[in-house]
Amino acid sequence: MIFASDTWAGVSDKVMAALAAASRHGGPAYGGDQITRRVEARFNELFEREVTVFLVGTGTAANTLALAMCARPGGVILCHSEAHILVDEAGASEALGSRVLGIEGRHGKIAPEAIAAALERFQPDHVHTGQPVAVSITEVTELGAAYSPAEIAAIAAVAHGRGLPLHVDGARFAGALAALNVSPADLTWRAGVDMMSFGATKNGCLASEAVVFFDRARAADFVFARQRAGHGFSKAWFLAAQMEAYLADSLWLDNAHHANAMAARLADVIRKSGTARLALEPAANEVFVILPQALDGHLRAAGVVYGPWSAASFPPAERPRAGEVLVRMVTTFATTAAEIDRFAAVLRGG
Amino acid sequence: MIFASDTWAGVSDKVMAALAAASRHGGPAYGGDQITRRVEARFNELFEREVTVFLVGTGTAANTLALAMCARPGGVILCHSEAHILVDEAGASEALGSRVLGIEGRHGKIAPEAIAAALERFQPDHVHTGQPVAVSITEVTELGAAYSPAEIAAIAAVAHGRGLPLHVDGARFAGALAALNVSPADLTWRAGVDMMSFGATKNGCLASEAVVFFDRARAADFVFARQRAGHGFSKAWFLAAQMEAYLADSLWLDNAHHANAMAARLADVIRKSGTARLALEPAANEVFVILPQALDGHLRAAGVVYGPWSAASFPPAERPRAGEVLVRMVTTFATTAAEIDRFAAVLRGG
Amino acid sequence: MIFASDTWAGVSDKVMAALAAASRHGGPAYGGDQITRRVEARFNELFEREVTVFLVGTGTAANTLALAMCARPGGVILCHSEAHILVDEAGASEALGSRVLGIEGRHGKIAPEAIAAALERFQPDHVHTGQPVAVSITEVTELGAAYSPAEIAAIAAVAHGRGLPLHVDGARFAGALAALNVSPADLTWRAGVDMMSFGATKNGCLASEAVVFFDRARAADFVFARQRAGHGFSKAWFLAAQMEAYLADSLWLDNAHHANAMAARLADVIRKSGTARLALEPAANEVFVILPQALDGHLRAAGVVYGPWSAASFPPAERPRAGEVLVRMVTTFATTAAEIDRFAAVLRGG
Amino acid sequence: MIFASDTWAGVSDKVMAALAAASRHGGPAYGGDQITRRVEARFNELFEREVTVFLVGTGTAANTLALAMCARPGGVILCHSEAHILVDEAGASEALGSRVLGIEGRHGKIAPEAIAAALERFQPDHVHTGQPVAVSITEVTELGAAYSPAEIAAIAAVAHGRGLPLHVDGARFAGALAALNVSPADLTWRAGVDMMSFGATKNGCLASEAVVFFDRARAADFVFARQRAGHGFSKAWFLAAQMEAYLADSLWLDNAHHANAMAARLADVIRKSGTARLALEPAANEVFVILPQALDGHLRAAGVVYGPWSAASFPPAERPRAGEVLVRMVTTFATTAAEIDRFAAVLRGG
Repeated sequence: MIFASDTWAGVSDKVMAALAAASRHGGPAYGGDQITRRVEARFNELFEREVTVFLVGTGTAANTLALAMCARPGGVILCHSEAHILVDEAGASEALGSRVLGIEGRHGKIAPEAIAAALERFQPDHVHTGQPVAVSITEVTELGAAYSPAEIAAIAAVAHGRGLPLHVDGARFAGALAALNVSPADLTWRAGVDMMSFGATKNGCLASEAVVFFDRARAADFVFARQRAGHGFSKAWFLAAQMEAYLADSLWLDNAHHANAMAARLADVIRKSGTARLALEPAANEVFVILPQALDGHLRAAGVVYGPWSAASFPPAERPRAGEVLVRMVTTFATTAAEIDRFAAVLRGG
Repeated sequence: MIFASDTWAGVSDKVMAALAAASRHGGPAYGGDQITRRVEARFNELFEREVTVFLVGTGTAANTLALAMCARPGGVILCHSEAHILVDEAGASEALGSRVLGIEGRHGKIAPEAIAAALERFQPDHVHTGQPVAVSITEVTELGAAYSPAEIAAIAAVAHGRGLPLHVDGARFAGALAALNVSPADLTWRAGVDMMSFGATKNGCLASEAVVFFDRARAADFVFARQRAGHGFSKAWFLAAQMEAYLADSLWLDNAHHANAMAARLADVIRKSGTARLALEPAANEVFVILPQALDGHLRAAGVVYGPWSAASFPPAERPRAGEVLVRMVTTFATTAAEIDRFAAVLRGG
Repeated sequence: MIFASDTWAGVSDKVMAALAAASRHGGPAYGGDQITRRVEARFNELFEREVTVFLVGTGTAANTLALAMCARPGGVILCHSEAHILVDEAGASEALGSRVLGIEGRHGKIAPEAIAAALERFQPDHVHTGQPVAVSITEVTELGAAYSPAEIAAIAAVAHGRGLPLHVDGARFAGALAALNVSPADLTWRAGVDMMSFGATKNGCLASEAVVFFDRARAADFVFARQRAGHGFSKAWFLAAQMEAYLADSLWLDNAHHANAMAARLADVIRKSGTARLALEPAANEVFVILPQALDGHLRAAGVVYGPWSAASFPPAERPRAGEVLVRMVTTFATTAAEIDRFAAVLRGG
Repeated sequence: MIFASDTWAGVSDKVMAALAAASRHGGPAYGGDQITRRVEARFNELFEREVTVFLVGTGTAANTLALAMCARPGGVILCHSEAHILVDEAGASEALGSRVLGIEGRHGKIAPEAIAAALERFQPDHVHTGQPVAVSITEVTELGAAYSPAEIAAIAAVAHGRGLPLHVDGARFAGALAALNVSPADLTWRAGVDMMSFGATKNGCLASEAVVFFDRARAADFVFARQRAGHGFSKAWFLAAQMEAYLADSLWLDNAHHANAMAARLADVIRKSGTARLALEPAANEVFVILPQALDGHLRAAGVVYGPWSAASFPPAERPRAGEVLVRMVTTFATTAAEIDRFAAVLRGG
């Protein structure tokens, strides 16, 4: 009963098989190989247009190297106050030259109006505040909510109105697609997204993330930024081999649909428990649960693995009350219905 | 006949098998897993003392994150003028806050006297020049030469005399051990090395490098620097699984001995060719060859893959003459004697 | 009727005279001169103990170079959400390697409990969040309030409890001393302050600020950081000559008492106006005023110069209501009673 | 007999008078004042075209903030191996994101061919080396030599041929103009210079340097970079007041002509001494002298102040021989003929 994180799962068999096959003979280093070329073509197909795409090994690398393409002196990136780029990347974007400014919003979402209000403080003639350089949102959000294409378009309109690119941290992008049942194009560039981190590690890969530029001119210096950050892998086909298998035969969407279904099953267990309750309705594979402290202790003692979470992006009325805790339970491509059922039994015994 | 680089090879079967096994079930993220614990213990054993060790995915990450632990305002790292950290990492160490100062020396080696002379320009009361913070050497060097333990000890004495730590870029460290037939301890901390990049990717792994601190106090902030650089892999056991297999049953040394033997066989072919000549005697798995231009064209046309190299660290008398080129040919754990023999035949036909 | 900022004032005659005298003959460059030595001694006297002190030309340089001495990988500086180092230095501290985290609090002050709560999110074993490296407060705050020695001591206790140094941005430090009627020692190191920016530019100097280290070991690399930032002035005696005159014959405290008295006079005018009202009681030389919009227009049309201000650090009940604006009016050593009286007349006519 | 550096001189009376006048009343902060506007207009006139100009307080700030406008990931600035930006700014340009690559050349000058050769190592498809982003030269050079307009044009042609801007560190630019008797326009943009540091501090000012952009589009983010570096002075008119007086009534050229004439007089003394000799013929106000060690001791004992210098940019045949030292003697606007004559007497007695 491991619901700690989607990063605790292993790797999809097909991904591993592809990696093993590629590893047998190697090939030109630093992305000069044919698998990388095929993956680039696959992304064009996937997004129904030409994109510029690069592979890296971690989500933090994807986010920060993408956003580094927007860096300017005094630059400020606007995002949600609980965004991974702000609170979970150990100052990575700051180290690459930008200030990261958090904006509050319910369930990890930022409202277009809140972005517009934050931008008000940055007036072109007031040099002290610095200058906004990008807006970044997370899809699905850190609280498991999914922005609809229309919601993204509204944010893009505000960003573009100030000449700012819109970046999406898509660490769980496949989960969002599976949840919303829309196309990759509709959820990104057709809604105004300029660049994105396209996650795969959390959904069946070992270590492979793509940075996708729809605003292709922004990508000019990416390879230098990647190399300077030590993210230019010599045997770079290892990233591509994973991604190729991940995107083949809809493995990636199948994995996401499965993880989401398991989350729905888990949510149902919570909903019916009478003791635990959902902090919000899950959109994808993360279930945020409010537990009485005693029950929390019971679950942990029974071997259920999960972690506490910050309630900062919930309105006060939705937060845990005294004697309660907010926790996150994450399902993955590898979660089984049996595991959820075992959890349900433990919960009932709590 | 691929002698382009050791980064063009595939992966040792045992490494891949270990990775596949670990990938089946995953485990605690970000290095909380048991394989990582076992690898840490293995490094203690390997170096015959307690060390602090971290795994990363690339050599540039290993070098720059290790050296970042020495960063201070105005800091200057001293190394060879052809060192990877200076000319091949796209400004990575500079981006982490240090100036990198190249010192000339034959065959990629720097002489202790040359380091001492360079340090003369940094006087404690002269703030403009900045302050030296580390000395870094490469073992084996960028020109395939190997420092002996005594040579390293002489450099360490100069560095320590100024209170500076000695870092070793050991991208091909196994090759050096195989060439010199000494123990890991003798070639490192017993000779005065304070921290090192312990390469594995070039010698049979997919993407796994260790940063080893003998001066363990230096390692205090490493995990934060690693995370900030996006090098904190979520499924970090993938680095450990490779390294565990690499260091088991002397696979790593077997691989290195094989690569070195193939280089020796290749060098012999060159030596006897009558047309090509060795730029220097190879110590490990890199063979630097001076070719008449016509022969260079012939070899490439025949499908031999290798690259040109800078002669900057050779004395003028040893450099290519008019009509000649300096090239590098690299053998690996996967190079076969048959491949060398085919090359010999092509060379004879040139 | 210039109340725009204390940075709009000229320079005290005695400061300018001292600068002119020093400029006649120059002297050893980069701080090797005797005036700098005397200023160092004067600071020891002023603070009743040995301190390590450096001079720079701007407040942003003072703040960021001081805080840079605390920088570590993944480092986070905690301060008020309206602090100058966070919102008015164009990302300076981020560019020197730290994330700056704002904490909300009334009137620009942060409560010890709020700092403690913010520190809760940084657990030693959770590398993603980074690590706190310093707490910084502003005295007087960005909203013109003054921390008492006891309030500072309470914050220092929280910071020190986590091993963090306490930095004070003392851009208006003289004003705080004048307001609180305490000694420099009581308001700093005796209350637990470890380092500070000691402002002089806003209170009669041209461009001279001191960075004072009570925790003297922190200062080891300051001169390198200063030089690297281009803040090592060649004719550095120009900073020292100003500071020497500023600190002589209590000019600095006289200037501050005068500015504060003018602010009190201005506040009295506001209080009695019946139209404008004080947003909070001024402690030093800044008067925050809530104006009906029409009155704001009238004042500006009459030639009163001042600027709007963010109400973000006021509780909702204290903020401007619809049709009102929050503005800041600043008095200086050069403000005259006649100027305030003219303003009073204009206000009455509004 | 102070020949230590032009930074040891005081300030021209007219500059100080202008500063004192401006200091009496202050004015809009952060460059919003009228003196700054007038200085901007004066630079247009001076260079016979529209330029974009900013004022800062130090030469290191001017150089590094100008060059920061060229920064890109993996960026490399090419300059002479003894250039101030490489060896005397404590890693400032590296800290702002660029690697600085030194190229050897006689008397501090770099040859166009040497730049072209260095650029050869940077091939667009080889990401490891990074990418060149600017060429920077010093006028007059660190060894006191002056590039002619034709020499600058030849370097500009190489730089522009690779799409790189040409930056001039003009810390002693007035001295070059006085030595070459050419116009500011001829020595800069008409010869292909894209941006420059226009020094004034070394030639009569207190602390004022201009960054001049001929390629005006490069200047877009300068104010943010300046503020972020703490170089946005609040009472910024203090920089402008100095510069206005410096550029009025040809004070700046008069000062430079005087300093150069004193250097010529000093060189003549050396030439006729029979004991000391010139290391090269001085172009402006720096005289590089080779002294027998005993004479060096005699001069110092007699109170002559000057410093040793590196002979690294001299061909071996021109360097000091055993028992000799290379020293630098600098004259300034404030040096008197009587001082030179006293020195001559001391030298004769050596």
